[in-house]
Amino acid sequence: MTRLTCDISMSLDGFVAGPNQTLQQPLGERGELLHEWIFRLASWRERHGGSGGETDADDEVLAESLRGTGAVVMGRRMYSGGEGPWEDDPNAEGWWGDEPPFRVPVFVVTHHPREPETKQDTTITFVTGGIEAALEQARAAAGGKNVSLGGGASLVQQYLNAGLLDELQIHLAPVLLGGGVRLFDHLEKPVELEATRVLASPSVTHLRLAIRAPR
Amino acid sequence: MTRLTCDISMSLDGFVAGPNQTLQQPLGERGELLHEWIFRLASWRERHGGSGGETDADDEVLAESLRGTGAVVMGRRMYSGGEGPWEDDPNAEGWWGDEPPFRVPVFVVTHHPREPETKQDTTITFVTGGIEAALEQARAAAGGKNVSLGGGASLVQQYLNAGLLDELQIHLAPVLLGGGVRLFDHLEKPVELEATRVLASPSVTHLRLAIRAPR
Repeated sequence: MTRLTCDISMSLDGFVAGPNQTLQQPLGERGELLHEWIFRLASWRERHGGSGGETDADDEVLAESLRGTGAVVMGRRMYSGGEGPWEDDPNAEGWWGDEPPFRVPVFVVTHHPREPETKQDTTITFVTGGIEAALEQARAAAGGKNVSLGGGASLVQQYLNAGLLDELQIHLAPVLLGGGVRLFDHLEKPVELEATRVLASPSVTHLRLAIRAPR
Repeated sequence: MTRLTCDISMSLDGFVAGPNQTLQQPLGERGELLHEWIFRLASWRERHGGSGGETDADDEVLAESLRGTGAVVMGRRMYSGGEGPWEDDPNAEGWWGDEPPFRVPVFVVTHHPREPETKQDTTITFVTGGIEAALEQARAAAGGKNVSLGGGASLVQQYLNAGLLDELQIHLAPVLLGGGVRLFDHLEKPVELEATRVLASPSVTHLRLAIRAPR
């Protein structure tokens, strides 16, 4: 069954990006601390044109998510690199560059119609019909695998509010950002979660949460 | 060495109490969800005049903290039951009743001078000299064990800001409260944490964090 899942790194104080995001610093101040756990991993390096890296339990968590993903849905801001003036430019280049790491069809939720693009193994489709339309297209393209929600926080909140997210895996980094973009914000109703797996290393705790009906 | 430690239950969205605390509901709305993991445990029941309960890995985490504690420091609001009009009454009874579960000396940080009280095995001393004085008295009374910071969030923040907290163990409940009292709020400078142990069960993840110097 094609499920909608989301893997996202979060600080202990609940932020998925630091304060003062810019095009040069799309994760905000100190936001890179959220992702320190991932840069050293073999599966991440392989996707980003590198080699080597560690093949430990954290790497297996990442590899498992990548293997299970048949399509990606992401927000306009995620595609073009955080919030800022450039987001008003509907033709802004994606910050993923000419070799995006996805290797599966990507669907960008946007208000601006735009022709699809193909870069290396990745086709990027811009969907103007809303989050349900994007999910529907992604499901059709996922070949029976999961649709992975790439973020940002606002899009995750929209899918949570619509009751469309099946699973959330939070990669909890033991850092405090003190400000920035909160993952759990703007939720319109209670969301019930069930921890279905927790794995931990010194650098990150992977919390896999099934989304249940609200209580 | 006597260290200052803190065990506290927190929701995934960072709250240690729900919204709208009252004397009848000192944990706020849905705040009891933070502590669901603990009520079933043998060590908790034993401390609260009950019997039976489970003796699983969660129970061992709790028992370990209780064994290691030689004295407790808590805030005035924690002593009298959350925020609210009653906190203006300096003689309000502690909401712990006549059989407080601590069984070690308790030091309450308050602005109101008050005579010490002894209830069962617990002596309660009211300290008006500030957080450092309370910690000093608690250390002297702890018999070489740890001083445990009982909360609430405001007092934890004061000790964090003063650089006096050595270890924080967050019991992370897989629930969203959507509002209430945040643990990581009002921090005056970056706090660097190091995860020194993570244990998890389906109902709670125990994150033990050493507090390092700010980066």
